[in-house]
Amino acid sequence: MATLTAVFVAVLCVILAFLFKISQRKETKVGKAESVPTAKARPWVDEDLRDDTDIGPKDDNDGDWVESGEEEELCHVPYLGSRYPVEVMVQRSQDFYNLMNQRRSVRFISPEPVPRQVIDNVILTAGTAPSGAHTEPWTFVVVSDPEVKHQVRLVVEEEEEVNYRHRMGDKWVSDLQRLRTNWVKEYLDVAPYLVLVFKQTYGIAAGGKKKTHYYNEISVSISCGLLLAALQNAGLVTVTTTPLNCGPKLRLLLQRPANEKLLMLLPVGYPASNATVPDLTRKPLDDIVVHV
Amino acid sequence: MATLTAVFVAVLCVILAFLFKISQRKETKVGKAESVPTAKARPWVDEDLRDDTDIGPKDDNDGDWVESGEEEELCHVPYLGSRYPVEVMVQRSQDFYNLMNQRRSVRFISPEPVPRQVIDNVILTAGTAPSGAHTEPWTFVVVSDPEVKHQVRLVVEEEEEVNYRHRMGDKWVSDLQRLRTNWVKEYLDVAPYLVLVFKQTYGIAAGGKKKTHYYNEISVSISCGLLLAALQNAGLVTVTTTPLNCGPKLRLLLQRPANEKLLMLLPVGYPASNATVPDLTRKPLDDIVVHV
Repeated sequence: MATLTAVFVAVLCVILAFLFKISQRKETKVGKAESVPTAKARPWVDEDLRDDTDIGPKDDNDGDWVESGEEEELCHVPYLGSRYPVEVMVQRSQDFYNLMNQRRSVRFISPEPVPRQVIDNVILTAGTAPSGAHTEPWTFVVVSDPEVKHQVRLVVEEEEEVNYRHRMGDKWVSDLQRLRTNWVKEYLDVAPYLVLVFKQTYGIAAGGKKKTHYYNEISVSISCGLLLAALQNAGLVTVTTTPLNCGPKLRLLLQRPANEKLLMLLPVGYPASNATVPDLTRKPLDDIVVHV
Repeated sequence: MATLTAVFVAVLCVILAFLFKISQRKETKVGKAESVPTAKARPWVDEDLRDDTDIGPKDDNDGDWVESGEEEELCHVPYLGSRYPVEVMVQRSQDFYNLMNQRRSVRFISPEPVPRQVIDNVILTAGTAPSGAHTEPWTFVVVSDPEVKHQVRLVVEEEEEVNYRHRMGDKWVSDLQRLRTNWVKEYLDVAPYLVLVFKQTYGIAAGGKKKTHYYNEISVSISCGLLLAALQNAGLVTVTTTPLNCGPKLRLLLQRPANEKLLMLLPVGYPASNATVPDLTRKPLDDIVVHV
């Protein structure tokens, strides 16, 4: 009888331990399910949607997302593009390379005014970039007001000093020292225009529902490539900066909505007459291309 | 005695259950510690460095990273850029916008050959893009071999079919249906060139040490913007694709090293004579620019 009781208790314990293990497994599964985005509701949504760096009022709950089939199919039309004779094409590709190869990141910008029409044209050009599912997830905020430019400078310099002194690590600071960049950004006051490029991490469809912006960071970066090409083509200069941790403050300063995150900040103008650039070279073709 | 045995066994079971729970907790903690990047060792390194989607041989441990001050400071030279009279600048900006605005993503590509020199020039142009700390973190793999192109197609179509059927969710598929894209990618066989754009998530410095590539994805996307501009300027077409989950397989197919991750795949050629494009419009200027 005693032995039977002991065996009974032992079996009971094994069963309890087994049940305990099962419950643990379930917990793990639930935990995982929570941390993994629910693919059906929001496939491939940018991580920024879940960032906690925002200051100011929180976005209202989760909102409605556009459902399948709410947008109609587009009709297709013939593609009408320019075609050049081979020798013209070769020459055009060479000329365009020569022009773009003269582009440099310039940190010394002239205060001379630049026609607004040129700025509009280069931004229109940036807006021709392709984007995931044609969502066009970009907003270009062009600051020419001296007081706002100065506010931008204050925000950037304050954060950049912290970045340089604490956040970036010796290695990065050293890498950048070669290019003589630091947290004093005089060009933010001097340049006639500051172009702040925001990526829209989601869109707002008709009716106020949220609309997924697939690959929004890649799309907006591509559009910045076109922006740089357009500036170079017009004889203007800029420096492509990604002000670390300034995004939320600059977004609020410029009163942009919560779905927009700062991706790049480009001061734009003519080069200063005494502008210098680091004596960099670019990799030769063989170092960047592989033919198969 | 019998009761004592039973109590003893029960206590033993409780102790065992407790130890079991403790060991579970430790496992969870270790799992978390591994997934969090060690910020000090590698500031701002791309998440891809820790992706587990790689197939094939694992990268050898962690490797050495270039230390501060191992690279010398660059001297600075005067910036010599073109400057145009105002009316010329306005006209140039308008003409360039008109040219870029004719660009479309074209999925119907002619098999006609395209001079290799043009491809080299457009890739040189892409290589003029700015990059974080001038790391130039891009590799352009140009595939013209028909057998390799077909292998690329097989990989992409196999993965894309899974994406469309299972991974993407109804909403994304519906968003893309408007543009009539699906997992059959005939252009991968037909286009004279496939340009596979890899981002180098880190570099290898002289001496075999690893070198941080700051903002490599943004940099490579910007260079793709320049690539698109150069193709459009030459009268060639492409479609900017980001083949989901194909990266590791295509990297191995093309024998690229572990630090390179596929960012985009662009089939390049003349447009097919019967090429069509979705009847899309672009947002007007007022919808993409905000003047402050």
